[in-house]
Amino acid sequence: MRIREFKSVVKKYRTVFFDAFGVLKNHKGIIPGIENTFKYLDERGIDYYILTNDASRNPEALSGFYQQNGIHCITPDKIISSGMLAMDFLRSKIKTGAVAYLGTSASSHYIESAGLEAIPVQELQDGQFEDIKCMVFLDDEGFDWNNDINKVINLIRKKNMTVVVANTDINYPVNRNDIAVAIGGIASMVEDIVHKNFIRFGKPDAQMFMFGHERAMKKQPSLKRNEILMVGDTLYTDIIGGNKFGMDTALVLSGNTLPDMADIRIKGSGIIPDYICESVAIDPEESFVNAGNIHVKD
Amino acid sequence: MRIREFKSVVKKYRTVFFDAFGVLKNHKGIIPGIENTFKYLDERGIDYYILTNDASRNPEALSGFYQQNGIHCITPDKIISSGMLAMDFLRSKIKTGAVAYLGTSASSHYIESAGLEAIPVQELQDGQFEDIKCMVFLDDEGFDWNNDINKVINLIRKKNMTVVVANTDINYPVNRNDIAVAIGGIASMVEDIVHKNFIRFGKPDAQMFMFGHERAMKKQPSLKRNEILMVGDTLYTDIIGGNKFGMDTALVLSGNTLPDMADIRIKGSGIIPDYICESVAIDPEESFVNAGNIHVKD
Amino acid sequence: MRIREFKSVVKKYRTVFFDAFGVLKNHKGIIPGIENTFKYLDERGIDYYILTNDASRNPEALSGFYQQNGIHCITPDKIISSGMLAMDFLRSKIKTGAVAYLGTSASSHYIESAGLEAIPVQELQDGQFEDIKCMVFLDDEGFDWNNDINKVINLIRKKNMTVVVANTDINYPVNRNDIAVAIGGIASMVEDIVHKNFIRFGKPDAQMFMFGHERAMKKQPSLKRNEILMVGDTLYTDIIGGNKFGMDTALVLSGNTLPDMADIRIKGSGIIPDYICESVAIDPEESFVNAGNIHVKD
Amino acid sequence: MRIREFKSVVKKYRTVFFDAFGVLKNHKGIIPGIENTFKYLDERGIDYYILTNDASRNPEALSGFYQQNGIHCITPDKIISSGMLAMDFLRSKIKTGAVAYLGTSASSHYIESAGLEAIPVQELQDGQFEDIKCMVFLDDEGFDWNNDINKVINLIRKKNMTVVVANTDINYPVNRNDIAVAIGGIASMVEDIVHKNFIRFGKPDAQMFMFGHERAMKKQPSLKRNEILMVGDTLYTDIIGGNKFGMDTALVLSGNTLPDMADIRIKGSGIIPDYICESVAIDPEESFVNAGNIHVKD
Repeated sequence: MRIREFKSVVKKYRTVFFDAFGVLKNHKGIIPGIENTFKYLDERGIDYYILTNDASRNPEALSGFYQQNGIHCITPDKIISSGMLAMDFLRSKIKTGAVAYLGTSASSHYIESAGLEAIPVQELQDGQFEDIKCMVFLDDEGFDWNNDINKVINLIRKKNMTVVVANTDINYPVNRNDIAVAIGGIASMVEDIVHKNFIRFGKPDAQMFMFGHERAMKKQPSLKRNEILMVGDTLYTDIIGGNKFGMDTALVLSGNTLPDMADIRIKGSGIIPDYICESVAIDPEESFVNAGNIHVKD
Repeated sequence: MRIREFKSVVKKYRTVFFDAFGVLKNHKGIIPGIENTFKYLDERGIDYYILTNDASRNPEALSGFYQQNGIHCITPDKIISSGMLAMDFLRSKIKTGAVAYLGTSASSHYIESAGLEAIPVQELQDGQFEDIKCMVFLDDEGFDWNNDINKVINLIRKKNMTVVVANTDINYPVNRNDIAVAIGGIASMVEDIVHKNFIRFGKPDAQMFMFGHERAMKKQPSLKRNEILMVGDTLYTDIIGGNKFGMDTALVLSGNTLPDMADIRIKGSGIIPDYICESVAIDPEESFVNAGNIHVKD
Repeated sequence: MRIREFKSVVKKYRTVFFDAFGVLKNHKGIIPGIENTFKYLDERGIDYYILTNDASRNPEALSGFYQQNGIHCITPDKIISSGMLAMDFLRSKIKTGAVAYLGTSASSHYIESAGLEAIPVQELQDGQFEDIKCMVFLDDEGFDWNNDINKVINLIRKKNMTVVVANTDINYPVNRNDIAVAIGGIASMVEDIVHKNFIRFGKPDAQMFMFGHERAMKKQPSLKRNEILMVGDTLYTDIIGGNKFGMDTALVLSGNTLPDMADIRIKGSGIIPDYICESVAIDPEESFVNAGNIHVKD
Repeated sequence: MRIREFKSVVKKYRTVFFDAFGVLKNHKGIIPGIENTFKYLDERGIDYYILTNDASRNPEALSGFYQQNGIHCITPDKIISSGMLAMDFLRSKIKTGAVAYLGTSASSHYIESAGLEAIPVQELQDGQFEDIKCMVFLDDEGFDWNNDINKVINLIRKKNMTVVVANTDINYPVNRNDIAVAIGGIASMVEDIVHKNFIRFGKPDAQMFMFGHERAMKKQPSLKRNEILMVGDTLYTDIIGGNKFGMDTALVLSGNTLPDMADIRIKGSGIIPDYICESVAIDPEESFVNAGNIHVKD
């Protein structure tokens, strides 16, 4: 497939959904040139949101990263995290009671904001098992895997309850060379052992895109799915999920899918993006010129 | 769990989604008493839709079955089939060209209504492979499995294309004692062989419920998910899917889940419905009395 | 990895196990030069067997193919087929009664040679279900998929019985460009639908290599596993299975694994052969010279 | 199925293979009456072995448990552990170099006895990755899951190597009510993340039974598979594996498969033991009387 310039692709859409890691940031921090991208989008009146499989911290904290890096337009309302879907689920389906969780104390935000009591698995006593209404897998950090994974397995075996996984990813990059098990990977191991059916939130599941679409329609009530461009670096989450939801999709080569492997991966997987772009970064000068041109032309 | 009367459960909701097989009909035809159920819902102003994993015929034909059985309120607009999601997908993502399919000629409705040319796999010539933009698995009938499944496998291997499965079910009941492979089962076998990622539509996927919700909001624009009751006979599709989408759920014991196994299945699967009811059928006399009471009370 | 000459590799072993398709033959017939390979092995006193995932016909018929192509040394006792393992199983575990099967009438050899009555599924009457002791998946040909697969599903659901799959492969090549569903693929679809545990025979399972080893020990009673070289074109069956059994393994590039992909496949799969060879074919002149040299040296 | 007395079942066989947990011992220790079982077998000249998915300690240590509980006939040569298969594999396929492992220091016996250097993952330095020839999953204890699982994942991603799992079990019982993740469960999670193919040893794989058969033939060279009775408490490992290998199988109800669920489990799984027995324990008085009778009779 032909490589396209992101700027010329994106201008056909009313809204953009960005994946975070591999698209806007990487292990070194913000990808250079992103600030021009958002300037370009703002100038053209194209709305944008970040869709991220992450339940490790709340939208304020997730947006804080961009703020600290000078991308002030990424306010908390621009963040759609898989944790928010879990929170919505808890609010509508659990209603009252205590919820056990694996994750950092920051991640418990998604339980507490649903009006429920969040109990970290490490503090859970045997006698409390009966009081637990739901178990949530939030983050891979903040607990002792040796003890607490086994404790969760026995909790779920003894008390029938709804189990929620707030991030479908099975691993995530920690630096240029290394990856780590994500909470979704731990949850899959537990699910295999207890033979129960967990409820998972996150891309590529349609519910994530639906949540984003609903959020975007608050600003643009008439926004149709095919007026949204989903931009991601991973065929198996961003692109297949975006395609299925009826959005147009752009694969970027700044993350998970390396430039020399893109064609092989697309052919091998049968997951076909509408566009391929090197990156979403926009060269500052270009940005201004084009933005100017566009205003004239339009 | 305690068995509840369907009538007393449903009156708390603004809209009901019914699964079809095992809930409204079975191998003998319409489940007796269903006509009173719809009368009861109409009297109380509760809206209803049928959500069915079926792409074998169009909504008109699917509604025709109810019409012929005297349930005149099930008009085509009350039917939400997984085939309609596939049709929506084709319309927004494929746009032009020819689409190959496995299924009956009736099932090709979902391709043609998307404005595309539908070519049954059995008529596909080797030279045409390049023209095919998409392959759709619609129905298990209407083709020769020995020849046409292998033909599809080689089509997908030779030409990179989007592959759609318009019914996620892997089997379906054909009479009281027997089941048959559904098109979703054939599609899974093909997917394992070609190692590509197909796009699937149907319960328990969120997109099916989202489609139903959007349809229902045309009548009741303020309808929230937790004002909808999803009624089904299968924990693994209707109930887990309904729960995840944020609807309340009722398991009925008139189909797939037998009365004496319901508790074991719920405990074994970890999929917990909000209610269990024997059936959705309502006794006619009761219906009138209650409906009267209700009108007085309300 | 470095490409090695097959002749220099094989001379270190007392026995060779060959995969058939992609190693000794392909869609055009016998791979040229194979006759010299067997001459070379015979001259050096290296024993050889063909290990093949095939239950479509008996060892006599399988050896007949080589005989007709002038490779007279491949007598029936040189053939180890997965069907023979199924036959052994039937003989020791089923003992008496009728066995239903999917496959050609030639494939029923493996049931009848076990002293059991073989009933093709298409001839099976509903009333006979109780008499069936075992169901065997033998071959993808010889039956009507539309009818007989569903019939098998209902047979297995109604009568608890042992189910045997006499060929683990899910697909096989039919010509240079095309593949077809193998009986192992059909069996996997059925297993997913009935939720029962089938017994599978064929590479990469250890039992296949064990059978070969036992056969070879009839000639060389002291033969150790690491004195056998397993030669195959497929990492996922021949090589991983041979490695696990404790044999040395040689990957050839004349079949499934193409020369330019071998390194990527080995790295991607983590399946590491001891050697890589272009092919097992030996150039005739070379063969004689070398064979001579070897006799002198030895 | 009818419940049979173990004594009357076992007397038809020349050799018995026992699973350990749930058959000979449970969370409280040795199952009472086992000493009479072995006395009975000794008197009749029936040979016996313990086949256990365990690589946590060497056969001497595993036999020590029985010795300490007064079962002196269980000498180290009566123990067949999955760790021994891993050791055999390492000896024949790895030959020289360093092997990294997850497990207790006791478990490293299986690497060191193969003549290789065993390096616990926690001591592995980044610079050493190149020297590692093989990675072995031995036991769930003896390492820090949070750190060392991620370290293993990156080791396997960076250096292509053979990965061995010395125990296929995904969980194991720790007391009457609780289970824990076994090393096989951790290995499966890692395999899903790195997308490589690991080599697994343990029941139900044929290689485990083959190893037992070879050991038993040292005493009884003519021993055929159908002269061995495999006794286990788990359909999915002991029984299906024993059946496939061609041994007769007895399910006992003293462990994993509870008496009131045995029929449902057999029907649900399609895994059919030749016999069902309450337990292998033999009442002492009965034992002597019967043993006497038998000597007279025989």
